[in-house]
Amino acid sequence: MLSSVRAGARRLPRYAGKVQVVRPMATASSVFHNEPPKPAVQTAIPGPRSKAALEKLEKVFDTRSMNFVVDYDKCHGNYIVDHDGNVLLDAFAQIASIPLGYNNPRLLEIADSPQMKSAIVNRPAIGAFPSSEWADVLETGLLKAAPKGFSQVLTSMTGSDANELAFKAAFIWRRTQERDGAEFTPEELSSVMKNQEPGAPKYSILSFEGGFHGRLFGSLSTTRSKAIHKLDIPAFDWPAAPFPKLQYPLEDHAAANAAEEERCLAETERLLASWPQPVAALIVEPIQSEGGDNHASPAFFRRLREMTAARGVLMIVDEVQTGVGATGKFWAHEHWDLPTPPDMVTFSKKAQAAGFYYRDDALRPDKPYRQYNTWMGDPARALLFRGIHDEVARLGLVERTAEVGRYLYGKLEALAARHPGEVQNLRGRDRGTFIAFDSPRREQVLARAKAGGLNIGASGDRAIRLRPMLVFEEKHADILIDILETAIKQ
Amino acid sequence: MLSSVRAGARRLPRYAGKVQVVRPMATASSVFHNEPPKPAVQTAIPGPRSKAALEKLEKVFDTRSMNFVVDYDKCHGNYIVDHDGNVLLDAFAQIASIPLGYNNPRLLEIADSPQMKSAIVNRPAIGAFPSSEWADVLETGLLKAAPKGFSQVLTSMTGSDANELAFKAAFIWRRTQERDGAEFTPEELSSVMKNQEPGAPKYSILSFEGGFHGRLFGSLSTTRSKAIHKLDIPAFDWPAAPFPKLQYPLEDHAAANAAEEERCLAETERLLASWPQPVAALIVEPIQSEGGDNHASPAFFRRLREMTAARGVLMIVDEVQTGVGATGKFWAHEHWDLPTPPDMVTFSKKAQAAGFYYRDDALRPDKPYRQYNTWMGDPARALLFRGIHDEVARLGLVERTAEVGRYLYGKLEALAARHPGEVQNLRGRDRGTFIAFDSPRREQVLARAKAGGLNIGASGDRAIRLRPMLVFEEKHADILIDILETAIKQ
Repeated sequence: MLSSVRAGARRLPRYAGKVQVVRPMATASSVFHNEPPKPAVQTAIPGPRSKAALEKLEKVFDTRSMNFVVDYDKCHGNYIVDHDGNVLLDAFAQIASIPLGYNNPRLLEIADSPQMKSAIVNRPAIGAFPSSEWADVLETGLLKAAPKGFSQVLTSMTGSDANELAFKAAFIWRRTQERDGAEFTPEELSSVMKNQEPGAPKYSILSFEGGFHGRLFGSLSTTRSKAIHKLDIPAFDWPAAPFPKLQYPLEDHAAANAAEEERCLAETERLLASWPQPVAALIVEPIQSEGGDNHASPAFFRRLREMTAARGVLMIVDEVQTGVGATGKFWAHEHWDLPTPPDMVTFSKKAQAAGFYYRDDALRPDKPYRQYNTWMGDPARALLFRGIHDEVARLGLVERTAEVGRYLYGKLEALAARHPGEVQNLRGRDRGTFIAFDSPRREQVLARAKAGGLNIGASGDRAIRLRPMLVFEEKHADILIDILETAIKQ
Repeated sequence: MLSSVRAGARRLPRYAGKVQVVRPMATASSVFHNEPPKPAVQTAIPGPRSKAALEKLEKVFDTRSMNFVVDYDKCHGNYIVDHDGNVLLDAFAQIASIPLGYNNPRLLEIADSPQMKSAIVNRPAIGAFPSSEWADVLETGLLKAAPKGFSQVLTSMTGSDANELAFKAAFIWRRTQERDGAEFTPEELSSVMKNQEPGAPKYSILSFEGGFHGRLFGSLSTTRSKAIHKLDIPAFDWPAAPFPKLQYPLEDHAAANAAEEERCLAETERLLASWPQPVAALIVEPIQSEGGDNHASPAFFRRLREMTAARGVLMIVDEVQTGVGATGKFWAHEHWDLPTPPDMVTFSKKAQAAGFYYRDDALRPDKPYRQYNTWMGDPARALLFRGIHDEVARLGLVERTAEVGRYLYGKLEALAARHPGEVQNLRGRDRGTFIAFDSPRREQVLARAKAGGLNIGASGDRAIRLRPMLVFEEKHADILIDILETAIKQ
């Protein structure tokens, strides 16, 4: 934690996680009066109209990664409608980034507000000419949604640049402490313009094997999920620690899993102590998502917090995919019961806005313009995040997602019992709907599920990851299981 | 250019710049019926209400770089209105990023359209599930606005990440050619996961001293404008060539300036030939903006094009600040009469959307998912850019800006003649309103101009840069000159 490098460190109270108020209410699907009752697939996917649209698009934009083409105006709630009129239950949700269902009526109201229109046409350079509403938008939105203990934010545009801004904060913090009040030296000022030490120090960020933190040059240097993301791109010489490879079901492998976590912790400690480029911060996902839905125990993360605090290394928790409710807590790291909060928490995706939270003035650079750019985020998306957070609170969607997740997990356990060779290493118990399993014939299962009206995603080498929205309910879970079982049995 | 490394390079026709159709019409200010007639300043800036708002904001967001707080709903056209009711003529325009005036009525219509609202609440992962309208939005917007010869685009979020995507395209292109059809080797696949060669090659991007290309880790490694942007941030060991330091007025220093450009070209060539980390691409701004409004001749840029083409190095033109009309061409590089277009052109700011244009299929990676991320741009901003481009064409704003720029430049020349010690090195003749000069007492002049009702910006160590919007007219130029002269004389 921040204060450890300095003498006279102030102590922070034990962190007990964010308190969630449970409100009894109607089901969330009451919001979507026109949500389809079930999937309906009439053509191959992509069908002829989707294919024609992709052919046209291919001339000006690379389409090789595209699944199908969507008529977004026809999508409602949990259902996505493709350009051929096929209706699919969407448990992928734009790579886990749609929070409250397609064409959510409350969010459409916000999109129709005068504030939103002004934010779109009068986009400010926030760092120079903020709107008179900016403090209010932050306080009633991004900061109201902040993890407990976090009182400040730096806004950005995507998860990838949010992580890079957090890295920059860590490097500046570290060197500022080492400088101990001294001004920049002439040598620093000249060497940095040549990208050389000491002005551009060879410091590092530690990440974990299998982790994904974005694809810009700094964030990609911490991403370790798949080679295809990284090949041919220059990278910084930064360390990667092993992330636990747990065996499932957890209750049958408690001792082996504990030993595996100890092995990873010991190697992390060794890297922090010995990496030639001093480690300014460690970054970790609560659940490695792109890397294959890899979990670790709360105790593992508590140990990371203790280890980084003891060494004066900052701890950045990347909640870009796990944040905003899907794990059954608003922020996934609330599951850990940490002794002190992380130093920074990054967010994007379902928040629609992006940035990092911090809790200590020491993470503001000592001088202005060190963390600065033209736009510094997007007020339009900050308005949207405020509306998302309000709606999540109003409908109790975090608690609902925890409930629905338990229901879905139970159904998947039963499915795995019926088809043990097809549903392996089920994981995500008590993590809301943030559930995954391994599938030996994954590509076939995904294709058949899609043909059956279920859009789901993959992660890692063989995982199927479920990333439904926060308005996903028991009735949707039933449909998902039915389609999945049919796909598996084919 | 692309084909030079390969045998059998196809030849491209000589590039004559984009043809602009001049349309006779009413003045652009007829669009803003409620634009204030002149500035009106009642309080110090920031005034008491702005200060109170900044104090509140400071608790949750770093405010040290902020000028004043704005009531955007009260701003119209070229005038910005602060939270104390002060009305200023805005010739800075949110760091050159507002194209068509505050609360532009046509853009407000677009913000109010069903398409925009859908784009806001149903934000797609474009690379996986594009909207059925995406091809049309690109073809009638971003690509209609593209520089001549550019038929493809990769969208992003900001100028900084647009440049990084262009760098990645260059690195992948280079290594793919060297690989010559072979698959990735096991050594590449394993080394890249450790951020090591050969999978993560030590290749480089050449930029110019004084250049600014963004502040993420890759783009910051090419930024060479100010130390404060770079200090304490690790950087890649990439080369920087000198950028010409021209003497003004140009007509009095033709021989010295030509020699200076030759010196810089020779050093660029030497770096391209000798830098230990092979140079995949060169990136250059048409006018170095953040670095102090540094110009070079069209001949200089033609030579860069020839040099890079001959060496199989890609040429990226960073039009983030110069693009979208302010120089009197839609794209500033149209002033150069290049023998062949650049390989990539990056854009953001006044386009509101961001990304890079390219013209050759070879800049699409050989495999999908190599240039990929969750959102891959923002359809909401692509809709806005389409509206901006349509409005620029409808009102002939590029041609108008060229005219107004000539008028403004003439006025500044006269001002410099009256106050030769205060207005030095005037530059930007025939570059629309993209004009700057050096001011020995810059901070005082800027403060007095602001007190007089004129918001203008600084760049480099001593430049004042004018970055009015495309709806800036002769009458606004008159007001600007009056306030500036008063500020200078004080």
